[in-house]
Formats: sequence, C-alpha cells, structure tokens
Amino acid sequence: MTKLFMFEKPLGMRDTLPLLYEAKSAVRKKMTDEIKLWGYQFIETPALEYYETVGEASAILDQQLFKLLDQQGHTLVLRPDMTAPIARVAASRLLNLQIPVRLAYDANVYRAQQREGGRPAEFEQIGIECIGNESVSAETESIALMVSSLKAAGLTEFQVSIGHIGFVQALFLSILGTEERASVLRKFLYDKNYVGYREHVKSLPLSSIDKQRLLDFLGLRGGIDALQKAEALMENAGGAASLSELREIMDQLNDHDAAHLVHIDLTLISHMSYYTGPLFEVYAGNVGSPVGNGGRYSNLLKKFGRDVPATGFAVHVDKLVEALGEPESAAQVSCILFSQERRKEALECAQEKRRNGIRAVVQDINSVQNVDRFTAAYQEVELFIGGKRDE
Amino acid sequence: MTKLFMFEKPLGMRDTLPLLYEAKSAVRKKMTDEIKLWGYQFIETPALEYYETVGEASAILDQQLFKLLDQQGHTLVLRPDMTAPIARVAASRLLNLQIPVRLAYDANVYRAQQREGGRPAEFEQIGIECIGNESVSAETESIALMVSSLKAAGLTEFQVSIGHIGFVQALFLSILGTEERASVLRKFLYDKNYVGYREHVKSLPLSSIDKQRLLDFLGLRGGIDALQKAEALMENAGGAASLSELREIMDQLNDHDAAHLVHIDLTLISHMSYYTGPLFEVYAGNVGSPVGNGGRYSNLLKKFGRDVPATGFAVHVDKLVEALGEPESAAQVSCILFSQERRKEALECAQEKRRNGIRAVVQDINSVQNVDRFTAAYQEVELFIGGKRDE
Repeated sequence: MTKLFMFEKPLGMRDTLPLLYEAKSAVRKKMTDEIKLWGYQFIETPALEYYETVGEASAILDQQLFKLLDQQGHTLVLRPDMTAPIARVAASRLLNLQIPVRLAYDANVYRAQQREGGRPAEFEQIGIECIGNESVSAETESIALMVSSLKAAGLTEFQVSIGHIGFVQALFLSILGTEERASVLRKFLYDKNYVGYREHVKSLPLSSIDKQRLLDFLGLRGGIDALQKAEALMENAGGAASLSELREIMDQLNDHDAAHLVHIDLTLISHMSYYTGPLFEVYAGNVGSPVGNGGRYSNLLKKFGRDVPATGFAVHVDKLVEALGEPESAAQVSCILFSQERRKEALECAQEKRRNGIRAVVQDINSVQNVDRFTAAYQEVELFIGGKRDE
Repeated sequence: MTKLFMFEKPLGMRDTLPLLYEAKSAVRKKMTDEIKLWGYQFIETPALEYYETVGEASAILDQQLFKLLDQQGHTLVLRPDMTAPIARVAASRLLNLQIPVRLAYDANVYRAQQREGGRPAEFEQIGIECIGNESVSAETESIALMVSSLKAAGLTEFQVSIGHIGFVQALFLSILGTEERASVLRKFLYDKNYVGYREHVKSLPLSSIDKQRLLDFLGLRGGIDALQKAEALMENAGGAASLSELREIMDQLNDHDAAHLVHIDLTLISHMSYYTGPLFEVYAGNVGSPVGNGGRYSNLLKKFGRDVPATGFAVHVDKLVEALGEPESAAQVSCILFSQERRKEALECAQEKRRNGIRAVVQDINSVQNVDRFTAAYQEVELFIGGKRDE
C-alpha cells in the first residue's frame, strides 16, 4: 500500500468545478421543474441504507456496492440506485397515499469501480417512479415525460429505443426450452455483443429454421413495421400480448407528440433481471452510453410488502450534460475593488448590481496580490480607490 | 445482532418526504441564488475521500467518521464537512485562480451518531469559503453574506453572536500560564457549561483577583460596550489586536446594514481547535442549536500546501427550515382523470395547464382503485370520461 499524495481522490471520485457545476445546476433545474409540472413529488432518501433491506433489494451487482459496518455490526451500503430506496418509502411511510403514486428524485448514487480511468463511482440521477399504475398509460407517460424533460433541459438530438422483455422471453423459451439457455442469449444482448450472439446461436443444437429465427430476431428494430416482422417470427411462441402493448404505447405516444422520437428495438435488454415488461433507453449525440433508461418492474415493491407494479426512468445527469456539449461560458461576474476609505460606496455599488441580478464581488484591494491577474477573471471591473475627487 | 425489519434505516438516517423536500428546495434555491450574486462560485466534491488526505485534515472527531476500506486497502471516509475537501480543491485544481478565491457549496455531510433518536448522521450544509483574503473585510463579508442569504431564505428573527479566539487565548494564557489549563476552560465554553466553568475557576490555585477576572469574562457579551469591558479586563494580557479586529468588523457591518443583528459574545467557542480568529454563530427562533456558524481558519490550507488564511460559514439547512416553521401547504396539483376514448383531450388539457405553470397529473381512471380517495390529494379535478356528448 503506497502513501497517498495529499490531493488524491478515491477511484472513480470526481470534483465538479464551477463551470461544469453551473451547467449541471441549470440542467437539474430545468428537468426537475418539468417533472414537477407533471405532478410528480420529489423525495430524498439517505445515502446509507442497510445492506439487509435496500442493499439486497437493489438491482446492482454486489461487487459494485460500497459497504461499511456500523457500530451495531450491521452492514451498510451507499445507495447504488434510487429505485429500491423509493420502493422502501412507498411501501412504508407513503403507504397512506392512494395508488397510483408519482414520486421523483434527484440524487447521487454510488457504484464501486475496479479500474482507474473507468466509470465514475458517484454520479447523479434524476428520475421518476410511477407506482401502482397498471395501465399501459404508465409506460407511455414515463417515456413522454423523459422526452419532455430532456427537451426542457435543452437536448434536441436524441432517440429513444423501446423493447419488451416479455416478447424476448416468450420467443427464447419457445425455441430454447429453458431459462438457463435463454439467459445466455440475453447476456449477449445486454452486452450488445451481436457477433457473440450470432456465433452462439450457430453453435446451438437447433433446427436450421429455429437458428434462423434467432438470427432474424436481431433485425427486429425500426418503426412499427418491426412489430409486424416480430409477429411473423413469433409463430405460436406467445408474446403477442407484449407486442400489442408496444403497439399501444407507440399509438399513445402519438398523442404526446413523441412517437417520432421513439423506435422499436426488440433486442433491447438494458438490465439482466430487473425489468418485467416494456423497457427503453435514450441515446443522444456522440455519448457512448445511454443518457437515460427505464421500464416496467413488477417485482420490486413486493420485496417491501406492497405487491404493485411500477414503472419509471432515470436520466444520468453527467451524460446529459455531456450530450449538451461544453457550457458556453462562465457566469458573468462584476468585480468592485475598493480601498477602505471608499468601502461604503463600493458596497452600495455592489448592492445595486445584485438588486438587478448582476453577480458582483467586492474586494479590498489591499488583499489582492496581483490586481491585473485577479481582475482578469471578471467581466467588468469598477474601482473605488483613494480619496474622492470632490473632497 | 437482530434481524432488521425491512423498512429500517441506519442510525441517524432520514427520509425527506414531499412537503419538507419542497420547503428545503425553496430555501436552498434562495440561499444559493444570493450566494451567487455575491460572486461565489459553487463546486462539488465527492462524498468519499481518502482518510489519509481529507479525513485527517477535517476538524471532525475521528469517532464521528464513517469509514470504509477500498479494494486497494486504503481507508475512505464519507466527507464529514466541506471545508477540508474545498481546501484540497483550492490547493490543487483551482491553484491557478488568483487569491482571494470565493467558493461555495451545497452538500450533504456525514457524521456517525451513537444514539437512537439523536442527531442526524447525514445533513445538508450550504456555505462559503473565502480563501486568501487577509483583510478584516473577509470576515465582515462572510457575516454579511450569511445574514443576507438567511434573509433571502425568508428568515426574519435571528441573531448573530461574534467572538474571537485570539482574545480568549490571550486572556486565558496570561492568567493560567499553560495551553493545557486554557483548553480545560475552553471546553466548558464549547459545551456552554457555564456552571461547570464557574466551579472549575473557583477550584483553581489562582489569586482571588484572577479568579474574578475569569468569572467576569463570562459577562463579556452584548453590544460594543462588551469590547470596552473586555479591554478593562484584559489588563496587559495581550489580545488588544483581537478586540480591535472585532471593533473593525462591527464598524464595517454598519455599512452592510447588518450590525443591528450582530452582538458580541467573547465567550463564544464554536469549535475546540479549528478557528484561529474571529468566529460567529447564528441562532434563530426556538431552534436549540445554531442555524449556522463560521469564522477564520488559518491552518487548514497549509495542510494542503497553500499557506493562506481563509474564512467562511456553513448554514445547516435542516435547522434553517426548522426555524422557518412548518411549510404552509403542499404544492397545488391538478388531477385530470380520463378514460381511453378521451385520452387525447385529457393530455391536451394537461399540456395547457403545464404551459401556464400549473402542475397536472393525468391518470387513466381504470388504474385508480378508489377515485374519491385518489382525487382527495389534489386541489382540482377534471374528468374526461366516456363518449363526448356531441358525438
């Protein structure tokens, strides 16, 4: 174990400096304002939860959890996502609320990383959970609100993919027979490793027709026509209900004026075991991983004793800020330098500016080492130095 | 170790439900807006830091730190305050900024608690650090900005106490002779245990005159006249510079129109070893502990290799919200219930409301178990149910 340099930070931990902080704040405000307009109520949950309760209910891999022991010997975790804590609250302190319940959050989550220069270990998510809403309208609303809040944040170029785990499972089980075999194929899709998928399919002891069906499955992407192709491919595999759910969602998205941003991708698997119905991801610009994702999960609330379905999305604020591009410039700040005899004038000048919404620093010139370099950081400089001329 | 109930949270951890969340959000926005107007730049630092760097530099007791081990065997801490992380950033990534540097933060901090029902283990602080500003104006600005941001948050009844660790130390050392004895007395002040202080003073092997001086010290509170009394008490103890600093701060606070909210309290010790000059606390309403506090600390930045003084304050958002009293009422939300054939009308109605800044939930009536109880939570209900009359 080497001695640490005094400025080092733990793996995956980051500082957010002023320029990026302001960009993130602006995005955060626009998104949360939009989510509030849709009637979602924000809540906050603690950073630390018991492993035995929320930690185990979370969909995040155990090796990604930050764990610590409390003085009573219980294992605590830094929350790895917000869905499990929200489920805990919805099933306990908010049990009196009539379902459907609409909750939202804006919070940092924590996932331990193994490699230097890899993914962040702490990152911010803004998201919603609509709990106890059984109709397809819940999924539509979730997608429409995600689209609307991304637009509110200023994002113009993005595309949502929507799939359905029910269709994938029906097709895979009817061809492969066992969940074990199906999960191997799902893992290839989860990793977006289509080459591996194809090779694996070819190696399976299946009829050439069934192999072809599994290969053709990879082509089930695009517009509504992908659903027609899926119906043809399905034969008697079951999964018709899933496809008609997707059709219904696409139809409803028209009413939200969002359908043109959404395309079908039946190969979409954005989590190995979490979602239980429709699921979606949003990609934007050149950002290599999804800016947001969501879907229906029907088994989580049950773990907290409230057996109702839920649907939701999470937007990754860092990715969104990345997709929006470099902030134009730092906030404009005026600088007012004074010497003591004219302090009062300087303060009045600052007060006047602030009343008009202008940011203003007031600084005693005697504490400035290098006036030129100090003032270079400000957009405007005013001086109240020395005696007044009229005196 | 007992089995945990599924809804339990770790000691000192809390959920923030919608009503309180909105109140906190509003306070947070007003305070941070005001701080930005004074030209302070917000930054964010990670929740986890190395114990060896920031953990050891922190002013928080070791037993209050949440510690965990990373996979490299280093000890990590959940940040117990924001001052040490900000010092790290100011001395590394922001080293290029010309001092004085004005930084701000709005962050949760973590302190392990020993007792059920005691203090929170996670709480939010909004604060500033003005780094490298040697003039008394820095302390004045810190107090004036704290006052101004509390007013912006809506606080009307509050009072700031200001003291000076330099005066206390000069007086105590001149009478008691050693730092060890002085620190025993300081601890009584820190605990606001004045009975204990008196008893301890009476037990000391001092002349009756010196005992009386230490007892009279407890009376050094109030207006500017407390400074005159302090000068008389001081004799040749040193500490004159400290008193004249306080006089200068009070004088400058007049120009900020804040002096009437500030009174002298030379017995103020708000931290055992952290502050090195003037220090202050703000109390409001019936809240039993300070809503905020701050002061000058000149030794922290040195630990990160940048030997400059700094001054700052932190406001405890929970305490401030407590002082502001119960939120008036939850945000007004409209509820629009629809059946599928009139979904489009319902969505248009919601869109129109949201455009006008009205929060609106749109809900398929088929997913509502009990319409009366569901709609009771909303201020206004509109129905789009069944066929249109004109059809």
